[in-house]
Amino acid sequence: MDNFSRRTIDDEIGSQSLVPIRTLRERIDAWHKATGQTLRPYVFDLTDYKKTLDMIEDFQPDAIVHFAEQRAAPYSMIDRDHAVYTQVNNVVGTLNVIYALARLMPDCHLVKLGTMGEYGTPNIDIEEGFIEITHKGRTDVLPYPKQPGSFYHLSKVHDSHNIMFACMNFRLRSTDLNQGIVYGHATDETRLDDALATRFDYDGVYGTVLNRFAVQAVIGHPLTVYGKGGQTRGMLDIRDTLRCIEIALTNPPEPGEYRVFNQFTEEFSVGDLAHRVQRLYPGAVIEYLPNPRTEMNEHYFHAVNTHLLDLGLEPHFLSDEVILEMFEIIEHHRERVVPENVNPDIDWRQTGTKSHLWPGLFDRTSKASGRGS
Amino acid sequence: MDNFSRRTIDDEIGSQSLVPIRTLRERIDAWHKATGQTLRPYVFDLTDYKKTLDMIEDFQPDAIVHFAEQRAAPYSMIDRDHAVYTQVNNVVGTLNVIYALARLMPDCHLVKLGTMGEYGTPNIDIEEGFIEITHKGRTDVLPYPKQPGSFYHLSKVHDSHNIMFACMNFRLRSTDLNQGIVYGHATDETRLDDALATRFDYDGVYGTVLNRFAVQAVIGHPLTVYGKGGQTRGMLDIRDTLRCIEIALTNPPEPGEYRVFNQFTEEFSVGDLAHRVQRLYPGAVIEYLPNPRTEMNEHYFHAVNTHLLDLGLEPHFLSDEVILEMFEIIEHHRERVVPENVNPDIDWRQTGTKSHLWPGLFDRTSKASGRGS
Repeated sequence: MDNFSRRTIDDEIGSQSLVPIRTLRERIDAWHKATGQTLRPYVFDLTDYKKTLDMIEDFQPDAIVHFAEQRAAPYSMIDRDHAVYTQVNNVVGTLNVIYALARLMPDCHLVKLGTMGEYGTPNIDIEEGFIEITHKGRTDVLPYPKQPGSFYHLSKVHDSHNIMFACMNFRLRSTDLNQGIVYGHATDETRLDDALATRFDYDGVYGTVLNRFAVQAVIGHPLTVYGKGGQTRGMLDIRDTLRCIEIALTNPPEPGEYRVFNQFTEEFSVGDLAHRVQRLYPGAVIEYLPNPRTEMNEHYFHAVNTHLLDLGLEPHFLSDEVILEMFEIIEHHRERVVPENVNPDIDWRQTGTKSHLWPGLFDRTSKASGRGS
Repeated sequence: MDNFSRRTIDDEIGSQSLVPIRTLRERIDAWHKATGQTLRPYVFDLTDYKKTLDMIEDFQPDAIVHFAEQRAAPYSMIDRDHAVYTQVNNVVGTLNVIYALARLMPDCHLVKLGTMGEYGTPNIDIEEGFIEITHKGRTDVLPYPKQPGSFYHLSKVHDSHNIMFACMNFRLRSTDLNQGIVYGHATDETRLDDALATRFDYDGVYGTVLNRFAVQAVIGHPLTVYGKGGQTRGMLDIRDTLRCIEIALTNPPEPGEYRVFNQFTEEFSVGDLAHRVQRLYPGAVIEYLPNPRTEMNEHYFHAVNTHLLDLGLEPHFLSDEVILEMFEIIEHHRERVVPENVNPDIDWRQTGTKSHLWPGLFDRTSKASGRGS
């Protein structure tokens, strides 16, 4: 199911995927041609509860992979309207899924995309969702403390808490995939047909760091490192993203169980990635910009990620080949890059700074809290 | 400022405060007569961002005491619409305050009413907002893990996280008062004039436990204990609630500081309170009902509450006199009690059980995510 919000937001922020994205009809046709399978789409907004109920009743899913969230931290930090849109969209959409499942299919497995950013950068090791704490002579296993760093990351923490409670209260079963930063542009499936290509975002709003560095290198723009580049994060290849979801689906939790998998394969600092791209793309230069985010430039970071490995994940580690292939695909679509979009132009400390946005987006959200059925 | 939502909800759930509540005009007039002070009301919904900005600009507050949240756990558990209303109302209202302050008055002190229920019932001592954790040889002070037990409690956790981030990101200053369960019916101020009386809720939706037991005793209804009554919680006298807010206001945090006070004075189990009421009201009987909530009936509970004591709080501990005076006020208004409202009729595990509600409430929330200004 899809409400095409990402295409609308491209218009709003004046950006586009590096790789052209076909219409949903063309993509479903291409998938049918390549595999013989017929996908049945539902086009509506997940904040519409009645349509959510209708879909569940009609499709009778064994599992739901829930990606229907506004997913860019910088977008949520543009101003009040974008913060509210992000939190209302994500929280209400997830509450609708929770209630629709509790009412109609409590045994359905809800796979929810979280983010490693829910944890922030604590000075102790990050565990997978829960941590054993001994305090004043007593011990308990408690939810890992969260320190999200944007209104987007906060919306993910809100949803994780809502789902954890729903599993306990309604006996739902759910896997929360706290994903690291994704890089890469293709999977085995998207390579079957050009029409199946997935988004490759490189801009300062939706682009992830390695993709953005690769684009900057190819178009001759300095690689823009925020602050000193000491920010360290868990990362993974886009092929591993898909494999992790498959592993979660084929190994469902028990009824009433809420479990968290940390979904990343390696840890890199932003500075390390810039130097790696620079080494592979002769002539690339690195520019250190004032950090528009409120985050630590140098910090401890180490996270556990054994749950998915134990279930059979075989990581694609970041190789030079992966980065070189990214350069190739970028060269191929070079004319589609909007150079002014590769810089950050959202200052997280201001309450409204991106003046060239198109207004009017938010009429979409007025039904978020309607009565539904 | 007020949107009178509580009066609307009384109509919806077919209940009313035991003590009659006058109109806001009458109450403001009575306060003027009693003290010479003139209160200036703003009547609008806090989910309206433009009006929130206008109010801050007009009033120029040194501090904001933010009580504008849907505050009943059972109400949030009625069905999907009430869960969504509670979370959207509370999260959007708080985001509006955050952005209005960040934009216009970042130095203003935001005093936010949280709840001890954010912590749940962990098997270790509950600290005030943060806990030092030593893990695999490293140590950090992190937000105390949250285990909220209803969509209302979850909304409070969401708001606490949003405010903590806003203090860091926008350099706001805020005190989060994690309040226990309040009992009692009057303060020195409300006693100045009958028109100043505050609500005394006793029903299964908004009534707090000791108030409800006292009403049940007086009208000859069994005291309804959920489960075995082993649920232990922090509690406080309504007079101490007001004093705690005063202490927070007169001892503001530093710019950028987010601090948490646990606002309760004593710990009681539900069963202890029932027995205490029974002892003071001869003839009262205790009835043990199936617990409509998903919570542990017997558990460890101990929480720290030293911050407010260190700043000068002198608690009114629960005395027999307080309970006997509650009986008196209830006798006085006995004809206003709706007997069928003293039982719980919301089963938290169901997705929609309270069939006698008036529909239509939720049109109010459609503007929650409007563009504002």
